[in-house]
Amino acid sequence: MLTFSEITAAAERLRGVAHRTPILTSRAVNAMFGCEVLMKAENLQRMGAFKFRGGYNAIAALSAAQRAAGVVAFSSGNHAQAVALSAQLLGCKAVIVMPQDAPKLKIDATKGYGAEVVLYDRYTQDRAAIAQQIQTERGGTLIPPYDYLPVMAGQGTCGLEIALDAGRVDSVIICTSGGGLLSGCAIAIKQLLPQCEIFGAEPEAGNDMQQSLRIGEIQTIAVPDTICDGLQTQAVGFEPFKVIKQHVKDILTAKDETVIAMMRLVFERMKMVVEPSGAAALAALYENRERFQGQRVAITFSGGNIDFARFAKLLNS
Amino acid sequence: MLTFSEITAAAERLRGVAHRTPILTSRAVNAMFGCEVLMKAENLQRMGAFKFRGGYNAIAALSAAQRAAGVVAFSSGNHAQAVALSAQLLGCKAVIVMPQDAPKLKIDATKGYGAEVVLYDRYTQDRAAIAQQIQTERGGTLIPPYDYLPVMAGQGTCGLEIALDAGRVDSVIICTSGGGLLSGCAIAIKQLLPQCEIFGAEPEAGNDMQQSLRIGEIQTIAVPDTICDGLQTQAVGFEPFKVIKQHVKDILTAKDETVIAMMRLVFERMKMVVEPSGAAALAALYENRERFQGQRVAITFSGGNIDFARFAKLLNS
Repeated sequence: MLTFSEITAAAERLRGVAHRTPILTSRAVNAMFGCEVLMKAENLQRMGAFKFRGGYNAIAALSAAQRAAGVVAFSSGNHAQAVALSAQLLGCKAVIVMPQDAPKLKIDATKGYGAEVVLYDRYTQDRAAIAQQIQTERGGTLIPPYDYLPVMAGQGTCGLEIALDAGRVDSVIICTSGGGLLSGCAIAIKQLLPQCEIFGAEPEAGNDMQQSLRIGEIQTIAVPDTICDGLQTQAVGFEPFKVIKQHVKDILTAKDETVIAMMRLVFERMKMVVEPSGAAALAALYENRERFQGQRVAITFSGGNIDFARFAKLLNS
Repeated sequence: MLTFSEITAAAERLRGVAHRTPILTSRAVNAMFGCEVLMKAENLQRMGAFKFRGGYNAIAALSAAQRAAGVVAFSSGNHAQAVALSAQLLGCKAVIVMPQDAPKLKIDATKGYGAEVVLYDRYTQDRAAIAQQIQTERGGTLIPPYDYLPVMAGQGTCGLEIALDAGRVDSVIICTSGGGLLSGCAIAIKQLLPQCEIFGAEPEAGNDMQQSLRIGEIQTIAVPDTICDGLQTQAVGFEPFKVIKQHVKDILTAKDETVIAMMRLVFERMKMVVEPSGAAALAALYENRERFQGQRVAITFSGGNIDFARFAKLLNS
């Protein structure tokens, strides 16, 4: 299982490379929610999402010979950009397998970081199999998006910063899909703030992790129909689930309409752009705010990669 | 003339009250501009703009008896909110004179902070005279938006943070209207970074300060027709101009269409919301980027108070 020392080692690799993102607060938001909300702004992270932490840590942990052979990754968007940018920074080649309906901004940004992009159909093709085939044919190291200890450790540095920077925290709610961020943050936060309760947040339409945690076994669902394009994973990863079963209190869900309302709130009150997946934790807190009355609650804005046209279309829908 | 020690005294009053806002960077922005751009994110300041610094400092510097008599202010928006919030935090009453065509978000926020709002027509009425009359009738202290040393000193703490936090800086470009932020920042930055050149940025349609600095005397213009609603002042203040004549190298201008392009860029690449006035410095840098090639240039995002409907209308115009 992922250990705290792997997270502190990741923090060393990321020092001076990843941003130590701010934790923002708003009296207006606190008044609306009935609790003190501490917002970890990973939308201000390099390439616009927390995923940079895991991608960079995984590639930085490779040997020079492994880096010379290049890396392969599959992702609906932000992990793609994370691996592409990290590979560029560390001087190695990257091939990224992305769904053809991923946001254009994310596909373009991945290409912009110098990666080769291979598109697939997320409804009919298996991305892991495609990535595996590319790796078999060309060599190089596969960097999975979440079911991989170096990626989980990198994402855990986000939780480390919450635990170090936020003061007292009663509960933490973390956007989750494959479980990399949630599991990494859970290990870091439980080590430093053992009394803090950890929650995941996922779209109501794609509540596989909520089902999995309540049943105690990984459940697989069809590709969920949600605006949260980064949270459409069909099942939590094996390694993350080991951590989540032990350390996570519950998985909360959020409706797409609440996610949109939170995107507007964050725009107008916090002056920041969050993508739909990035607003899921705040939306889940809002829907479950009765449960957190009077607490100090940290949440993650996991990413901000959305172009203005899609943002406007969602807010006007 | 404003002194550096008044700015450090303001910094003491603001410690733990104002946010020490981050200075953000983006490789994509640097590549596009041909220089290193250091973005001071005052849109993330309390009440969404740098104006909180000056408003709070001015009210905090009053005696208890003065505070008990209340404060009066006139403003196109952000100074209104700054005085309203500061008065609320410091337990005193505030009356704010605002133009009736100010953005609704700003009027509503000012009322939300507990202030009484008096509206006027900016094309036919003199706001300073209205505020003066209210003060004469009801008593209290008038807190002018820029031509007032305690306000200038408060705004100067933004420049103090740039000088302390940004490392080497070759040039600083600061959004300017009445000159409070520009003059305060100029004193702070010239004290700590004497080699750094200071520039103001104003809308091309309202270049009164550019004219004033080049002629050496304050020029007054008609209310300028610009989307930058916070930069429609008709003349620089007397006290700020003393500083600007001595310390500011030049005033740059920006077209409204460039301001809109920068709002989109900041949204998509920096994941942040800046209001039109808040994007003027970045827009002026973009229009004058040949002059700053290879430099490290700090700019201010002076505010982020714009509702989504107006933001969308501008970007789709």
